[in-house]
Amino acid sequence: MKDKLRAAIVGSTGYGGVELIRLLANHPQVDITSVISSSNAGEALTAGYPHLQGVLTVDTLDAVDPRLIREKADLVFTATPSGVSGKLVPQLLETGVRVIDLSGDFRLKDRAAYETWYKHEAPPQDALDGAVYGLCEVYADRVRGAAFVSNPGCYVTTATLGLVPAVEAGAIDRGTIIIDGKSGVSGAGRGVNLGVHYSEINENFKAYKVNKHQHIPEIEMVLSDRAGEPVTTTFTTHLVPMTRGILCTTYASIADERYMNEDAWIELYRNYYEGRKFVRIRDKGQWPATKEVWGSNFCDIGFAVDPRTRRVTIISVTDNLMKGAAGQAVQNMNIMMGWDEDLGLRLAPVYP
Amino acid sequence: MKDKLRAAIVGSTGYGGVELIRLLANHPQVDITSVISSSNAGEALTAGYPHLQGVLTVDTLDAVDPRLIREKADLVFTATPSGVSGKLVPQLLETGVRVIDLSGDFRLKDRAAYETWYKHEAPPQDALDGAVYGLCEVYADRVRGAAFVSNPGCYVTTATLGLVPAVEAGAIDRGTIIIDGKSGVSGAGRGVNLGVHYSEINENFKAYKVNKHQHIPEIEMVLSDRAGEPVTTTFTTHLVPMTRGILCTTYASIADERYMNEDAWIELYRNYYEGRKFVRIRDKGQWPATKEVWGSNFCDIGFAVDPRTRRVTIISVTDNLMKGAAGQAVQNMNIMMGWDEDLGLRLAPVYP
Amino acid sequence: MKDKLRAAIVGSTGYGGVELIRLLANHPQVDITSVISSSNAGEALTAGYPHLQGVLTVDTLDAVDPRLIREKADLVFTATPSGVSGKLVPQLLETGVRVIDLSGDFRLKDRAAYETWYKHEAPPQDALDGAVYGLCEVYADRVRGAAFVSNPGCYVTTATLGLVPAVEAGAIDRGTIIIDGKSGVSGAGRGVNLGVHYSEINENFKAYKVNKHQHIPEIEMVLSDRAGEPVTTTFTTHLVPMTRGILCTTYASIADERYMNEDAWIELYRNYYEGRKFVRIRDKGQWPATKEVWGSNFCDIGFAVDPRTRRVTIISVTDNLMKGAAGQAVQNMNIMMGWDEDLGLRLAPVYP
Amino acid sequence: MKDKLRAAIVGSTGYGGVELIRLLANHPQVDITSVISSSNAGEALTAGYPHLQGVLTVDTLDAVDPRLIREKADLVFTATPSGVSGKLVPQLLETGVRVIDLSGDFRLKDRAAYETWYKHEAPPQDALDGAVYGLCEVYADRVRGAAFVSNPGCYVTTATLGLVPAVEAGAIDRGTIIIDGKSGVSGAGRGVNLGVHYSEINENFKAYKVNKHQHIPEIEMVLSDRAGEPVTTTFTTHLVPMTRGILCTTYASIADERYMNEDAWIELYRNYYEGRKFVRIRDKGQWPATKEVWGSNFCDIGFAVDPRTRRVTIISVTDNLMKGAAGQAVQNMNIMMGWDEDLGLRLAPVYP
Repeated sequence: MKDKLRAAIVGSTGYGGVELIRLLANHPQVDITSVISSSNAGEALTAGYPHLQGVLTVDTLDAVDPRLIREKADLVFTATPSGVSGKLVPQLLETGVRVIDLSGDFRLKDRAAYETWYKHEAPPQDALDGAVYGLCEVYADRVRGAAFVSNPGCYVTTATLGLVPAVEAGAIDRGTIIIDGKSGVSGAGRGVNLGVHYSEINENFKAYKVNKHQHIPEIEMVLSDRAGEPVTTTFTTHLVPMTRGILCTTYASIADERYMNEDAWIELYRNYYEGRKFVRIRDKGQWPATKEVWGSNFCDIGFAVDPRTRRVTIISVTDNLMKGAAGQAVQNMNIMMGWDEDLGLRLAPVYP
Repeated sequence: MKDKLRAAIVGSTGYGGVELIRLLANHPQVDITSVISSSNAGEALTAGYPHLQGVLTVDTLDAVDPRLIREKADLVFTATPSGVSGKLVPQLLETGVRVIDLSGDFRLKDRAAYETWYKHEAPPQDALDGAVYGLCEVYADRVRGAAFVSNPGCYVTTATLGLVPAVEAGAIDRGTIIIDGKSGVSGAGRGVNLGVHYSEINENFKAYKVNKHQHIPEIEMVLSDRAGEPVTTTFTTHLVPMTRGILCTTYASIADERYMNEDAWIELYRNYYEGRKFVRIRDKGQWPATKEVWGSNFCDIGFAVDPRTRRVTIISVTDNLMKGAAGQAVQNMNIMMGWDEDLGLRLAPVYP
Repeated sequence: MKDKLRAAIVGSTGYGGVELIRLLANHPQVDITSVISSSNAGEALTAGYPHLQGVLTVDTLDAVDPRLIREKADLVFTATPSGVSGKLVPQLLETGVRVIDLSGDFRLKDRAAYETWYKHEAPPQDALDGAVYGLCEVYADRVRGAAFVSNPGCYVTTATLGLVPAVEAGAIDRGTIIIDGKSGVSGAGRGVNLGVHYSEINENFKAYKVNKHQHIPEIEMVLSDRAGEPVTTTFTTHLVPMTRGILCTTYASIADERYMNEDAWIELYRNYYEGRKFVRIRDKGQWPATKEVWGSNFCDIGFAVDPRTRRVTIISVTDNLMKGAAGQAVQNMNIMMGWDEDLGLRLAPVYP
Repeated sequence: MKDKLRAAIVGSTGYGGVELIRLLANHPQVDITSVISSSNAGEALTAGYPHLQGVLTVDTLDAVDPRLIREKADLVFTATPSGVSGKLVPQLLETGVRVIDLSGDFRLKDRAAYETWYKHEAPPQDALDGAVYGLCEVYADRVRGAAFVSNPGCYVTTATLGLVPAVEAGAIDRGTIIIDGKSGVSGAGRGVNLGVHYSEINENFKAYKVNKHQHIPEIEMVLSDRAGEPVTTTFTTHLVPMTRGILCTTYASIADERYMNEDAWIELYRNYYEGRKFVRIRDKGQWPATKEVWGSNFCDIGFAVDPRTRRVTIISVTDNLMKGAAGQAVQNMNIMMGWDEDLGLRLAPVYP
């Protein structure tokens, strides 16, 4: 076992944390050597998550202590609430441990934008500058060998994987992008509030944070980077009465006559993602459903072209806890370490 | 009881039919005198719907026989699959019985458009011409005293109640309308197929009939009529893992500077729907959820204006079996008969 | 309006409270004159429950003040957490207002038993003695004209309506009763905790409070009263991933050879409940589902006799917020006032 | 690859079949060499299950042809409807291929009992005699090296793993066993009928096949075998509005004073299942929920002892498609082949 990478997880009692545990427990090159929780240190992880009994060799939750983390681990995943990682990660990096952050604190490079959308103080600029943005299929070159990766947001991953090839190719009018996002409830985490009460969610569908979601500037950051010019989008988020899954329905006006048919879209995207194992482009006339990626690291994408309105509709789906969080974090680890990007992630979707 | 209106329901074993029964069973001016089913004639309604035991005085399902219907009823609701009403309703009208049709066969006036979108033969032109389109809050004047009303589609009601005031006022650029619709599963009816299998729907979210839904021309018919010029829209339908409820998220570019704030939208809509009992305009910063109209005849509407993109987002919700079907049909009956439009419909939403 | 009964609701912001509001808002003999909340006094009821917009004429939540309640109301429903009513109701009764308590604090007459199962101090003995236990189909005679009724628990109503005729008739061996109860989540109320978190409940089924549920002594109180001797039962509660509905599967050994067939059971129960509007006995070979009473005040009951094991299986269902709470409370009000027991309650189940 | 076991799956388009594919696709010692379907031969498996795109190297569905199966495979899983395997498996065994049957046709050894409960003709007696009943934790010795294993039913596995140690130890009165079973909908398979229609299942809970379920004689077969005398049980099945999961709540009178406390139960079961990787006995006062085994091969068990009634309540849970079907089938394969019983099955439950 001595050759395996030793991994620690800060935020092990959150949904992102337990999903990391599920994945890393079976990763052939990783040992989980520390599960960490600020609020439950000293308790057993399995007290709150009995489904993990017998799955892990470590069980007692460690406190958040950078030196202890460095002693126990070579790489640490920080799956903490926004605002916590911003303070913790710089301390972790000083110890020399590698970090993959799932919190969102290091995605935006612009402190002012961060503070506008996140409503609290941004991390220090040098920490922001040091973070590699880990949208694997777009920025793998930067992730390779990096010491610190900021894992993208769940909506952002789903929306941008569906848009980047189109934006780069100039297939759409960049001023017309509208993204209608829908997410399962697990994206809100395990914290309790009326907004995640079963009786309020079940048999209900609603929009939330309209025009105010903190993933808006992150989506625009990626699209602007790939477009080489500022891209502004309309993005709406909705809550679906289900636990896992994100679907983005994205609309844009077609800017290039060659893209007035679906074959052209399929060819463009299959070329763009050639060799990448986790993006699957659907055949003509088929659109992916969230269940078809459930529990897996896939992002599936389908297209519809409407000659009546000259608009394209792009449907992209992920499992928000997998490709939208823990799965992509493990994929980033694999790329950082120079391993196959799907190591430990060759999980078929669970269906039904 | 002799003064009450005698009502018959064709298609009593479908979801629209049983919802009509739920409403009419308690309507103070109506007696249900015949429940009719082509496929189950002679059987007991309660054999298939035990929840109705003790609710109705009639139970044996009648066959579809226009003369018998006329004998038993003054008004008949036809809640049949598309294609059936198209043939049946002209025969019913000949007998002199009043008809409210929920099938969709008489909504489009243009036979060619009907055949393009419905993929089968359209009803005769004179029958189409005789049908009053019963979107109550827009066309009540025409419904009053009518003998034959065509009840609007569920998506159409939800989308157009959210758009008509804006279109009439010129508040939006009519070429930029995108409607992202989401519906519960009951809209698909009680027929069995893999698409409504519990294990395929539960914990799943998906788009369907992208750019091909037969409600597209119906939406455009209403909007074009109110705009006084052709309006083309992009409309997408999604299936939500819940039984009841429709939510439309509608996007459009704001065409008039006065509508660059939400107060103006709220005022416009509250004025437009003044005195109407079933449209509720939400306060600033609030958007309706489908559960907030569940089991009731309300259509709730909320707004968000985004100065960054100069677009408005309109959220409108209904219960697809109520305001989207049986509820609006009863409302149409009330208006036809000169009664209060909410007679028998003063049902608060069931929550939670 | 001056002839109507003026009703107040303490605990208007809980699920029991809003269900009372839904029912009373359409009750022909009642005006809701005060909605009361200890935690949200001064706020608008519709701020927390936008689905009630336009449904009520009162909106501002009153504080809990017995004198004010008496001024505004002739009858008050106390839908409070256990422990609150125990203190409040004696004060309310002193003012002369009628009270129907939904809290559970006045169901058990034995203070020691109360404290064993509820784990806090019992109300004063004289208040306990003054409460009429309002299981309508069994104790209507006592409810008629009463000033203070204690509304039964949801599980208790469902289980005992399924058992009382058998216990009275001596059809079963009273020492063999096992009740396996299953409930939707709304029974736990609107309070937030991990136990009602959507992601923890959805796609999950579990037992809780095994052998410890506070409804056990209440069930045994009713059964012992009807048997004329102490009856002890095994009762287990489970949480179903749905919002509304209770189903009890009850097992007992058949004590009387005449009840070794289902016809005898059906006859026994139909006789027992003859003339009662809210108990429906199913035909042979049919068992009720919770959805078949959803949103209504019905309790449906079905039977299976197994000659192999000489046991009967009794299936009984209610909507826990209706017959299990608010519906039965309104039924109790109707009986107290000498009205038809189904006044304002003639609501067909909402299906689907 | 030549050293791997070549596996074929008859019934690849059912839920049991796709779950086998999910597991075998990642099994380190297995190659899936043929996916077989009687109804869809010649079509692509991924046409009906797009979630499997990129997961398998084979995609075209083969017809059911014993000789072809033998050519392509060393072991075949038959995940067919009851009645089909009964005819097919004898033909397969003649070719010399190993068989693990998931259909239920070879579980009961008594043809008359089979025909009483299954309502169609039983397989030939010699085929019944040749089948090893593969309840892994009880009959592993017989499975080791077997050529033909009959995989137990989902309810049976869940119920008997919760009862066998008690029955063998004489801890309970064998005449008092009552098993209240609850299952998710996927147990009914992918076939379409009103009973699995989403709108009929969602927000609904019901009993079905009361005293008539074909798993009753199978449960009694196992318990009688372990008891060394005939055991008769009452067993009820219920449908839970969720896709996966079975929970059995089992009641029995305690026959031995030593088992009047929960510690004794926990010790008894931990000893019985010592060294077995898929049975987890919960700590005192904890009962398992179905979600805690979701997607995994675990069976979790908890206990409650009630001194008031001298009864024990045993709660046992499985994922019906895993330990209740495909997971146990793979476990049986591992045991047949002499591999670690958890090879390819070290999957943590998916939570939430």
